Amino acid sequence: MVDSAVIRARARWPRVIFAVSTVPAAMNGQPGGLAVRRKEAEDAAAALGAEMRFFDVGDYPLREAPEVVDRLVHVYREVAPTVVLTHTLADPYNGDHPAAARMALQARVLAQAIGYGAPGEPLGAPPVFFFEPHQPEQCDFRPDVLLDITPVFARKRKAMECLPAQEHMWEYYTDLAKRRGVQLRRNVGPNLGLPHNTMGEAYVRLYPQVTGVLS
Amino acid sequence: MVDSAVIRARARWPRVIFAVSTVPAAMNGQPGGLAVRRKEAEDAAAALGAEMRFFDVGDYPLREAPEVVDRLVHVYREVAPTVVLTHTLADPYNGDHPAAARMALQARVLAQAIGYGAPGEPLGAPPVFFFEPHQPEQCDFRPDVLLDITPVFARKRKAMECLPAQEHMWEYYTDLAKRRGVQLRRNVGPNLGLPHNTMGEAYVRLYPQVTGVLS
Amino acid sequence: MVDSAVIRARARWPRVIFAVSTVPAAMNGQPGGLAVRRKEAEDAAAALGAEMRFFDVGDYPLREAPEVVDRLVHVYREVAPTVVLTHTLADPYNGDHPAAARMALQARVLAQAIGYGAPGEPLGAPPVFFFEPHQPEQCDFRPDVLLDITPVFARKRKAMECLPAQEHMWEYYTDLAKRRGVQLRRNVGPNLGLPHNTMGEAYVRLYPQVTGVLS
Amino acid sequence: MVDSAVIRARARWPRVIFAVSTVPAAMNGQPGGLAVRRKEAEDAAAALGAEMRFFDVGDYPLREAPEVVDRLVHVYREVAPTVVLTHTLADPYNGDHPAAARMALQARVLAQAIGYGAPGEPLGAPPVFFFEPHQPEQCDFRPDVLLDITPVFARKRKAMECLPAQEHMWEYYTDLAKRRGVQLRRNVGPNLGLPHNTMGEAYVRLYPQVTGVLS
Amino acid sequence: MVDSAVIRARARWPRVIFAVSTVPAAMNGQPGGLAVRRKEAEDAAAALGAEMRFFDVGDYPLREAPEVVDRLVHVYREVAPTVVLTHTLADPYNGDHPAAARMALQARVLAQAIGYGAPGEPLGAPPVFFFEPHQPEQCDFRPDVLLDITPVFARKRKAMECLPAQEHMWEYYTDLAKRRGVQLRRNVGPNLGLPHNTMGEAYVRLYPQVTGVLS
Amino acid sequence: MVDSAVIRARARWPRVIFAVSTVPAAMNGQPGGLAVRRKEAEDAAAALGAEMRFFDVGDYPLREAPEVVDRLVHVYREVAPTVVLTHTLADPYNGDHPAAARMALQARVLAQAIGYGAPGEPLGAPPVFFFEPHQPEQCDFRPDVLLDITPVFARKRKAMECLPAQEHMWEYYTDLAKRRGVQLRRNVGPNLGLPHNTMGEAYVRLYPQVTGVLS
Repeated sequence: MVDSAVIRARARWPRVIFAVSTVPAAMNGQPGGLAVRRKEAEDAAAALGAEMRFFDVGDYPLREAPEVVDRLVHVYREVAPTVVLTHTLADPYNGDHPAAARMALQARVLAQAIGYGAPGEPLGAPPVFFFEPHQPEQCDFRPDVLLDITPVFARKRKAMECLPAQEHMWEYYTDLAKRRGVQLRRNVGPNLGLPHNTMGEAYVRLYPQVTGVLS
Repeated sequence: MVDSAVIRARARWPRVIFAVSTVPAAMNGQPGGLAVRRKEAEDAAAALGAEMRFFDVGDYPLREAPEVVDRLVHVYREVAPTVVLTHTLADPYNGDHPAAARMALQARVLAQAIGYGAPGEPLGAPPVFFFEPHQPEQCDFRPDVLLDITPVFARKRKAMECLPAQEHMWEYYTDLAKRRGVQLRRNVGPNLGLPHNTMGEAYVRLYPQVTGVLS
Repeated sequence: MVDSAVIRARARWPRVIFAVSTVPAAMNGQPGGLAVRRKEAEDAAAALGAEMRFFDVGDYPLREAPEVVDRLVHVYREVAPTVVLTHTLADPYNGDHPAAARMALQARVLAQAIGYGAPGEPLGAPPVFFFEPHQPEQCDFRPDVLLDITPVFARKRKAMECLPAQEHMWEYYTDLAKRRGVQLRRNVGPNLGLPHNTMGEAYVRLYPQVTGVLS
Repeated sequence: MVDSAVIRARARWPRVIFAVSTVPAAMNGQPGGLAVRRKEAEDAAAALGAEMRFFDVGDYPLREAPEVVDRLVHVYREVAPTVVLTHTLADPYNGDHPAAARMALQARVLAQAIGYGAPGEPLGAPPVFFFEPHQPEQCDFRPDVLLDITPVFARKRKAMECLPAQEHMWEYYTDLAKRRGVQLRRNVGPNLGLPHNTMGEAYVRLYPQVTGVLS
Repeated sequence: MVDSAVIRARARWPRVIFAVSTVPAAMNGQPGGLAVRRKEAEDAAAALGAEMRFFDVGDYPLREAPEVVDRLVHVYREVAPTVVLTHTLADPYNGDHPAAARMALQARVLAQAIGYGAPGEPLGAPPVFFFEPHQPEQCDFRPDVLLDITPVFARKRKAMECLPAQEHMWEYYTDLAKRRGVQLRRNVGPNLGLPHNTMGEAYVRLYPQVTGVLS
Repeated sequence: MVDSAVIRARARWPRVIFAVSTVPAAMNGQPGGLAVRRKEAEDAAAALGAEMRFFDVGDYPLREAPEVVDRLVHVYREVAPTVVLTHTLADPYNGDHPAAARMALQARVLAQAIGYGAPGEPLGAPPVFFFEPHQPEQCDFRPDVLLDITPVFARKRKAMECLPAQEHMWEYYTDLAKRRGVQLRRNVGPNLGLPHNTMGEAYVRLYPQVTGVLS
């Protein structure tokens, strides 16, 4: 299986294209069909206008290793993402998710270090967002950001449809986007006039938001 | 003592003037000098371009009562604030702070109800921010917003200086703004180029942030 | 509005009919139409084979008062429920929910006291379950029970349809039941062979489960 | 020392014999006497009607390694346990306990994966229970299950008595069972009529309970 | 029933006699026998060398009222306790315990206020300790202090024996003291050489410890 | 950079000199200048009357390895510290800090084991304190100890001044000591009469405090 984290991340947030490339990619845990899955992932990325990087770090379970982290540091330095999306740090249903997240976070911090031996400028401090797992409450996922994806939802849907083997997930994520959209409208200030069919995504921040305006 | 919540709230976020009026006001817990304190509070508010409302609900401890909540609902409906700032819901050093916060929050929800008997339009859902208490860790204050107040700090300082009896607090809050400013700069994305003397304030959100852009 | 807690509780768990009567009832927060709402609630209850008790304790916000608690104690003693369903103790969107829950819980403990002046036997210790709020993560709702409601879902749907003014909620709760059903199937042991269309409800326990068998 | 997790697990829950074999086994941290300890463990298991597996993965501290996890996956696939008992994930007094638990949990998830290379059917989703550590509050052990072990306590006691070197623990665990039994009786519903000498064990669930009946 | 908080508090910590008088006292929830219970409580207090204050605020449930808090403020000012012991703020089994604790804490803060109208000097900031409830984990009781009561345990036992109606509790608290004593010995530094029969009590602090030496 | 943990630890608590040697030392993450940094660290230690151990375990990120833990066990056995100071276990800004802390804690537990192959007596149970990170709230740092360092602050300042490259930190830590000193004075009992310029440090305990006196 191609790592769905990458695909979903792109699907969810197509306006910051390069950020997603910094999430650890392509852990193939199933025998056979890898080439097909890779192609699907690339199609989905293309639908979003994003680019795909495959790490091919091997079998399920995902091996957490310094070399993988180092390769991620190189991607961070090359791409200089403005945001990072990754899995939650807790997930009792899939140990690969926290492992991928730990490496994504460790590489981000190393990429910031002046002395780290990788080409490119030291990274700034791009904000980190955890995206929603299947069983959010079991993963300590308490959303502190509700993102309005109404204007880009059609593109996200198109990207999802590049993955025919996961057709049952298309409706699941469409329903989820509706539910988060309903919540978004209940949490919004008075002047936005959001439409009934608002579509949303929920995120958890790792670091405090930095802003010049409270809203 | 005039309720410092109001003053500090205005001082901290002068660009949304009317919001602060929705925070419960003017609990005088000390005999004598009330007129002087009231005048100081009005001067501080004026320095911020804000307006002051005194509720005069009586002595320390703050009495948590339906009538006070109802008066707050009226203010919400009249002012239609775009943000609400209030105390933390936990504070083992001062029970008046959580009591004020509970009333501010209850009134905000009631002001949203179509059926509530108070003039004006039903309130939208203005975001709520808890501001920083003196002993943040003991009040479960884990900042999720760092606000850059560099451009308005001089005005905040001027407002604080309207309270001569609290002179020792002037330096305290200036130091705090520096410390939060240092943290702000460490959490900021790569392109902002913040100056060395960045001044900051820390906040905790009650509700998830609603946004169209992750940043 | 008739208190939806009661209706939903019955709808969710029709096999223990009397238990729901111990949940605080009938808080009417809207002017007019009370008789209609009452009738709808009774119809919904009838669809479940349950009985309805109206407390008529007055307007929104719900008044938390010793007399209401005392009336609840009488109901507990009369009904001797084997389970109690109520709202979550935290809900930043609706203060009436925690208020109702606090009274339901206080009355339950008082009904257990031998010395309490109400007819009937002292209550045992019926387990307490919090049912799912609209924004579960903001209400500290981390499910520890997933209830299979597949065999009774049709009846729940019928009960919901007795509330025509809340038609938009019919689909919402049907979708939610599907989503919780999917999670239920992922958490189930090996031998149950649950069908694809499993419908579920999520709950949080207040007290530890007591059992003679681990499963 | 033979890993007490296995022994205690069997001792605690003798009615699901094979489940315990899935807990990581036999970490010998003390020089000498291993053969004696092994014999004692087998006697204790026999007293419970359970079977013992020794992994002999070496010295204290327990080495957390992919090969050990893989061997555990094989046991899961072979035994197909209906429940899993293991240590808490936090234990500041003994790092081997969380290490054993992490491997037990990782292996359980891998054993569920269709593509994992081990004989036998993919595992279902047996519920996981953490058993009680010596200093429960320091290990974030907040019981959500109280198991009535009155009918099998005599057998548990007999199993404990197979470990003469730990004689001081016999009384300790008997007292603990009494204390948990008292709590069990206070949390039980009205109709069970539990006797005064109820013996209990406390557990924490990792995953939500799946059930068709609320009780 | 005489409020056991007071009695136990004295029994547990006889060396700071007056502190216990600041805990809310004497809530009689049972008809008849009050005089007997009062006498027993006074005997137990005398066994500890402590003095008893009865508030007689009426029936179960404990009424949380400003007048009771005010009376407590007067006691604080009169006694000037150096420590305060009270119930946990969470207790799903007995709502009177948190109610008593809330009043004890509110009165303590008010007694510190210079402007509060009660005779005596403003109170300092005596540390607050929550003592152990019957079901500690359900009351969020995570001990951060283990008190060695070996030298005074005999006196505590004698005080408990002044309450013949609670004879079953004598062994319970003796066993508990042993269990906490075992934990105490496991957490102690290298040089104390504690005996095998160490008796202990567990507490949770509300405020940070203030000290001149780390130990 | 020489690991600042060691330096700060010594600087903060000079009266227990040998304890700091048990914290993992000397992780050099920057090219060049190591000799200079080493010299500065030794000067700072000397200013405190403490001794420095360098582990030279290599580059940033800190490698978490059994050999490093084993070397730490040897230091524990040799020094027999009465307290241990280390980093917080959570730090989203610097992964080396939790890694160092995990090794310090694992080694401490192993040093207690009778069977562990290292010279010297088995360690007792020295209390563990986490010292304050730069962004305490993001590191789950909720102080439960406030240490009065007024009498030794001058020496701490002198030690800091041995690190000229970190001059901006001198004021930072001096300001922090003032702020913690203010909090210390607000949490102190009535009879201590602390001066206005009290300097403090905040700590979090890992294990419960063991004491013979509540204060």
